[in-house]
Amino acid sequence: MRLLYHVALCPFSRKVRVVLNEKAAEYQLQVEKVWERRPQFLALNPAGQVPVLVEEDGAVLAESSAICEYLEEMFPDPVLVAGKPRQRAEIRRLVAWFDLKFEREVTRNLVGEKMMKRFLGLGEPNSAAIRAGHANLPVHLDYITYLAERRTWLAGDQFSLADIAAAAHLSCLDYIGDVPWEDYPAAKDWYVRIKSRPSFRPLLADHIAGLPPPRHYADLDF
Amino acid sequence: MRLLYHVALCPFSRKVRVVLNEKAAEYQLQVEKVWERRPQFLALNPAGQVPVLVEEDGAVLAESSAICEYLEEMFPDPVLVAGKPRQRAEIRRLVAWFDLKFEREVTRNLVGEKMMKRFLGLGEPNSAAIRAGHANLPVHLDYITYLAERRTWLAGDQFSLADIAAAAHLSCLDYIGDVPWEDYPAAKDWYVRIKSRPSFRPLLADHIAGLPPPRHYADLDF
Repeated sequence: MRLLYHVALCPFSRKVRVVLNEKAAEYQLQVEKVWERRPQFLALNPAGQVPVLVEEDGAVLAESSAICEYLEEMFPDPVLVAGKPRQRAEIRRLVAWFDLKFEREVTRNLVGEKMMKRFLGLGEPNSAAIRAGHANLPVHLDYITYLAERRTWLAGDQFSLADIAAAAHLSCLDYIGDVPWEDYPAAKDWYVRIKSRPSFRPLLADHIAGLPPPRHYADLDF
Repeated sequence: MRLLYHVALCPFSRKVRVVLNEKAAEYQLQVEKVWERRPQFLALNPAGQVPVLVEEDGAVLAESSAICEYLEEMFPDPVLVAGKPRQRAEIRRLVAWFDLKFEREVTRNLVGEKMMKRFLGLGEPNSAAIRAGHANLPVHLDYITYLAERRTWLAGDQFSLADIAAAAHLSCLDYIGDVPWEDYPAAKDWYVRIKSRPSFRPLLADHIAGLPPPRHYADLDF
């Protein structure tokens, strides 16, 4: 069986989980406590990060961007990077927007400081970083609003990897109750549509011991 | 004419320049002082970063990973992400290694602190960051050595986007004289082969006013 090493609140792992689910690719999940730097895991991925996908024959795939393109090539139905080259570039631009810019400005500052630091034993959260994360989030929710008001999905007419990447990050923030959805109705409407997809449901069932999510986290009509 | 907005010592811009050169795609270079946050440029790419590629008909492409995949689709000769899906995933894994991990651990700490901070008016270089960059670089040169001793090119038998991404970062470091090539003969041999490619030559002619590179920077037989 295909195996995906992951961490529950890692947005990159979540992105790959949703892609696998969308494509109905069978796999098992395996939590990898990356902060323990297990030698057997480092042998799979010298970068020491999740997600890592191990195929049934032992082939190892690492880096979420490479894994998603691989799955797109291996399981072309449904297409998640669809269209002509320019449309595909727009999808990939937005994937990079969320995986690089949103991650650096928001996810790392909020999920990283409040949750991952605890696991990593890196001490108390940095309150300046948390303030920065809260200050940056509205800019991104405005951008999602801008896109959602002009397009059916973030990158255009079709649901795509851009929606998955964005929702993967937001779902981690939502788990810690940090998204002011009420102030962003168009973004909320977009996220409601994502939450209702069968591919996304397993993420809403995630439950970290001792750190339950807020009640609206798994609610499809929040 | 196709236009590429770039910054001379931006490794992501350099990666796209080499891809364009490899594919013999015609373009003009336009320096964009991203630190000035010019409104017309932000309208092209709200992320405010280079590289940005503008096609002759005005179509705008941003984010180097999206631009490279776009160019791969538009100009399939030569193929820079070649092979079956697993081989393509290995190429993309290494591109992410250099663009994310190497960038965070080395490029940002050395080129960012010593050069970009000056342009950005962000004050004095952070000496702790510079020490971290110098401490991290040997780990990566060891990894390049490991790959170069087992493969013709970093990702396998064929020259690929992985070589271009790695060389783009190293060429920026080399411009400031920060690569101890003599201690890494296999990595140096690989880089000599990159430097001798016609696609790479224009990068070796880059010359920043008031900040000349060391003599070996453009030397093909350094």
